[in-house]
Amino acid sequence: MNADQLAQRVAHSMLAAEGTGPAWGIRIEEARHRYARISMVVRADMLNGHGIAHGAMIFALADTAFAYVCNGGNHASVAAQASIVFLDKVAVGETLTAEAEEVVREGRAGVTRATVRTADGRVVAEFTGYSRTLGGAVVEV
Amino acid sequence: MNADQLAQRVAHSMLAAEGTGPAWGIRIEEARHRYARISMVVRADMLNGHGIAHGAMIFALADTAFAYVCNGGNHASVAAQASIVFLDKVAVGETLTAEAEEVVREGRAGVTRATVRTADGRVVAEFTGYSRTLGGAVVEV
Amino acid sequence: MNADQLAQRVAHSMLAAEGTGPAWGIRIEEARHRYARISMVVRADMLNGHGIAHGAMIFALADTAFAYVCNGGNHASVAAQASIVFLDKVAVGETLTAEAEEVVREGRAGVTRATVRTADGRVVAEFTGYSRTLGGAVVEV
Amino acid sequence: MNADQLAQRVAHSMLAAEGTGPAWGIRIEEARHRYARISMVVRADMLNGHGIAHGAMIFALADTAFAYVCNGGNHASVAAQASIVFLDKVAVGETLTAEAEEVVREGRAGVTRATVRTADGRVVAEFTGYSRTLGGAVVEV
Repeated sequence: MNADQLAQRVAHSMLAAEGTGPAWGIRIEEARHRYARISMVVRADMLNGHGIAHGAMIFALADTAFAYVCNGGNHASVAAQASIVFLDKVAVGETLTAEAEEVVREGRAGVTRATVRTADGRVVAEFTGYSRTLGGAVVEV
Repeated sequence: MNADQLAQRVAHSMLAAEGTGPAWGIRIEEARHRYARISMVVRADMLNGHGIAHGAMIFALADTAFAYVCNGGNHASVAAQASIVFLDKVAVGETLTAEAEEVVREGRAGVTRATVRTADGRVVAEFTGYSRTLGGAVVEV
Repeated sequence: MNADQLAQRVAHSMLAAEGTGPAWGIRIEEARHRYARISMVVRADMLNGHGIAHGAMIFALADTAFAYVCNGGNHASVAAQASIVFLDKVAVGETLTAEAEEVVREGRAGVTRATVRTADGRVVAEFTGYSRTLGGAVVEV
Repeated sequence: MNADQLAQRVAHSMLAAEGTGPAWGIRIEEARHRYARISMVVRADMLNGHGIAHGAMIFALADTAFAYVCNGGNHASVAAQASIVFLDKVAVGETLTAEAEEVVREGRAGVTRATVRTADGRVVAEFTGYSRTLGGAVVEV
């Protein structure tokens, strides 16, 4: 099993184990070494009081992609900190895709960047996640 | 209606209008001028692949409190940017409370700080939200 | 020596040891347990291309106060991550004050909030620092 | 004058006009449309109390590159918010390079990512800047 296959197995294993993945309708489009692209359809129960997608659901998609990426080497990791810039509104029914890539890893620390886009290519958010590795494996290999 | 009453009315109106509030079981504990305290019980469908509360749900609670606070003056506002530090794990069944306060407002910009705590007093996250006012009211007064 | 005296000694010791403190004209107004207030006068060599204080110098003041606070217990600590919101312009000759307080500490991690104000009370920035303790002392006691 | 030439002219004009550029020894390595790469040598007056480069100087380099990039289209812009993750120590005498790229622009808002590296290729910081365009030109064309 190479690094891409391992990352893919970790991502699918995490999605199968987590409560949020099914609850949010997360779909893994691609997962490989230090990279993940996942999608989600915005439902009525994801809208805020202004009738558009709640920022926290946009964050949730990016953060989920980040989790798959920072755990992808099969070293259990958690988010220590995250930042997000919101750039555009999202309507109910739109499909959002988060594309995440780990840009650096230094010791136990890592930084993953993610971009959230709509199906028509609008960038709705830019996310940065700072992860720390705890030790222990995510999946048995 | 004074500023505290207006803020309270805006918060309850937003909760009633949003899809996420009921979906996440948001409960408003207190809402007044530039302040909100809300709570949520962590359910199985809010857990991540490590079996603890997904960071995005902790963010969601803080971000919701932030939304009530930055809209509390009845000027429609949105999150432009947000940052969060995650400090501790949260187990299923725990009740989380987010306490949010607007620390500064300058023109259309505002900064709201929020702390997320468990019922036994552990601080699990520190959140900062940067809002921008769009114009328009949230509720009719 | 109590916790307030220790924090004060650490802050003054750091200022004496660092190159940046004298270079930026940092003055410690008050330093105590989990708290520091420091000031700096904005000089011509701190201005950006628009003729106002460079955001990085506003960050520098807040970050310095953060460093004094997160090291104040005499456990050597470093910034792992920091975020800042810029709210207002600052002119040459203005005195800026950063007031920093550690809001939480959990294991090796800590979060410090800082507000940067002008002498006439305008809030020009809100800063959040996330620190990690490395081990080792800052001063001999 | 094409977009790359305009961006280069803006960057050099800003460096010539600002107090901080000469004070910090900023050198523009490359500036083009939505991109800048600049460098700085870490001096003794840039060290913190632990004897390593002050995080604020690492931020300053990234923030300067960000300023050149977000103003590069000749629409005066300022930083509204910035976040940085610190990943490694930097010693006195090391040359730091910040490479910044605007990843998205939406209306008056923009997001620029910057990476700060040492001459031997260590990544010491990952920076994200959120800019807002004020209107007005930076240089006369």
